[in-house]
Amino acid sequence: MSRTPPRPLTLRDVSEASGVSEMTVSRVLRNRSDVSQATREKVLRAAKQLGYVPNKIAGALASQRVNLVAVIIPSMSNMVFPEVMTGINKVLENTELQPVVGITDYLPEKEEKVLYEMLSWRPSGVIIAGLEHSEASRAMLRAAGIPVVEIMDTDGDPVDAVVGISHRRAGKEIGEAILKAGYKRIGFMGTKMPLDHRARKRFEGMTQALAKGGIEVADHEFYSGGSALAKGREMTQAMLERTPDLDFLYYSNDMIGAGGLLYLIEKGYDIPTQIGLAGFNGVELLQGLPMKLATMDACRSEIGRRAAEIIVARTEDPNVEIEERIELTPTISYGDTLRRG
Amino acid sequence: MSRTPPRPLTLRDVSEASGVSEMTVSRVLRNRSDVSQATREKVLRAAKQLGYVPNKIAGALASQRVNLVAVIIPSMSNMVFPEVMTGINKVLENTELQPVVGITDYLPEKEEKVLYEMLSWRPSGVIIAGLEHSEASRAMLRAAGIPVVEIMDTDGDPVDAVVGISHRRAGKEIGEAILKAGYKRIGFMGTKMPLDHRARKRFEGMTQALAKGGIEVADHEFYSGGSALAKGREMTQAMLERTPDLDFLYYSNDMIGAGGLLYLIEKGYDIPTQIGLAGFNGVELLQGLPMKLATMDACRSEIGRRAAEIIVARTEDPNVEIEERIELTPTISYGDTLRRG
Repeated sequence: MSRTPPRPLTLRDVSEASGVSEMTVSRVLRNRSDVSQATREKVLRAAKQLGYVPNKIAGALASQRVNLVAVIIPSMSNMVFPEVMTGINKVLENTELQPVVGITDYLPEKEEKVLYEMLSWRPSGVIIAGLEHSEASRAMLRAAGIPVVEIMDTDGDPVDAVVGISHRRAGKEIGEAILKAGYKRIGFMGTKMPLDHRARKRFEGMTQALAKGGIEVADHEFYSGGSALAKGREMTQAMLERTPDLDFLYYSNDMIGAGGLLYLIEKGYDIPTQIGLAGFNGVELLQGLPMKLATMDACRSEIGRRAAEIIVARTEDPNVEIEERIELTPTISYGDTLRRG
Repeated sequence: MSRTPPRPLTLRDVSEASGVSEMTVSRVLRNRSDVSQATREKVLRAAKQLGYVPNKIAGALASQRVNLVAVIIPSMSNMVFPEVMTGINKVLENTELQPVVGITDYLPEKEEKVLYEMLSWRPSGVIIAGLEHSEASRAMLRAAGIPVVEIMDTDGDPVDAVVGISHRRAGKEIGEAILKAGYKRIGFMGTKMPLDHRARKRFEGMTQALAKGGIEVADHEFYSGGSALAKGREMTQAMLERTPDLDFLYYSNDMIGAGGLLYLIEKGYDIPTQIGLAGFNGVELLQGLPMKLATMDACRSEIGRRAAEIIVARTEDPNVEIEERIELTPTISYGDTLRRG
């Protein structure tokens, strides 16, 4: 189809359609109070029928800021970040601010590029996943002069504010629960490794906790592909063929954990006596499996909400007092696959 | 934390840090070719170390357009729209365009509000889910003077371009497959109904196909809550208690279908002989269940890709010839839960 775009609508179009002067139309559209209710309604009705929308670019030039919040996350295609987005949206939808989303695929060089593009629009704030960034990205974040909230992870030094959980502690707590339950031969399976710093920190936390009980991880497999059920099945089968005496499997996320669980049920393993399992994320979607997988809620929606609240508060008042480090506390859900010690 | 934001960086800061004149710095940052390679590198290195990012708002004021693409979708929290977003991102990440995401929760009044907000930023294009919009939303889309692509669904009249599948036809094809396989007592379960127009159209398409074989839907349940495994279990159990002689269950999405499947397996139903099942969406995540659920791929990632390609082509040349109606063809995947007739 070839076509000429329609001529942009102007105040004059609304003025002609409503029979009200351009100046009054402008007052109504800027929400000024010095216009009668009847006139206001006439103008708004005409504007709506025409499909007129005011232009905010000029205002942005004056303020040097647009009402966009840059949200920079690794991926949309697993269940983790859409829930963070939902939390962010819940807060921003009651404000003038809108999220702009950039995807990094867990790659630092891509994060740098996306951040550069977004900052060139002078957004009102940045919400960015993780604490590990390139030097150039950190320089841009520091120089941006807007609120920056790093989310998901609190194990490190933020540029500005941070909202998340300690993944080292999450791994440590799982490690302690595994020890307490008496498991001795532990296997770890991780996807998106080593790019997923948060999964790596959980692995490290668990390893340290186990070491205190004199136990070393007996086998591990890092895989940098997807994270579906089928991948969890495959990895579990391969690991148990290689190291058949494992009695506990810790997965970097619930989806591969659920795949492993379905595989072990089919093969007739006695869970959690013969072998225990735990995932991570508390994916609500997975409630309804034949057995409930042990996991830990990553507080995703709350992280999004709290981060957006910081941006909103700082946008309204740059000097407002805020908590610059918000560490949320996930709790272990034992489900049916991790013995209570 | 209370703090004064840093003074915004200017061309002069880059000039001082690099020892190159402001005019030359400006040339380098606008990618002009009349600067030596050595000078260019010096300037870019200094800009990177400082975290300097050029300001694009002024350019937008001149062109009356910003390089944002408004993407308006019902939800982030199921698996459908994140995959559409991934498709859109794959195309836009190679361009200057960035997606801005608005969420409607399947509510027309919220869609209207989100659209209004986004259009006030004069984006370069709009990608919006579905063909059903309020009159005011349609007026805004028509008047915007930018490429508009309605996605997911081709059963109706688009404002401008449309990329999707025919959900009526998808439902009809499943209905025909059910008839051909010899099932006679059919139940339908839908979530997000009646707000999800696409699920409604699939239901209508199936009903029509069954009617041609002289069969009426024996039971149906519409539920407007979430769509997790547990919901699929509950709905399936309730329906089979109410109508125990059903021999086929059609679900509005794969997640509730998978919940139903797990329930039926546990209860010892003989699938697909005693009872058959089908879902919708082709959610890749679900590969790895004990049996493969019959489904239909909704072409989500391709829909996102093709829609973004239209926006990109039209942004480069508003008069370019494009296909204004792209209907993709999903195919039935029979899996282990739908007999081949």
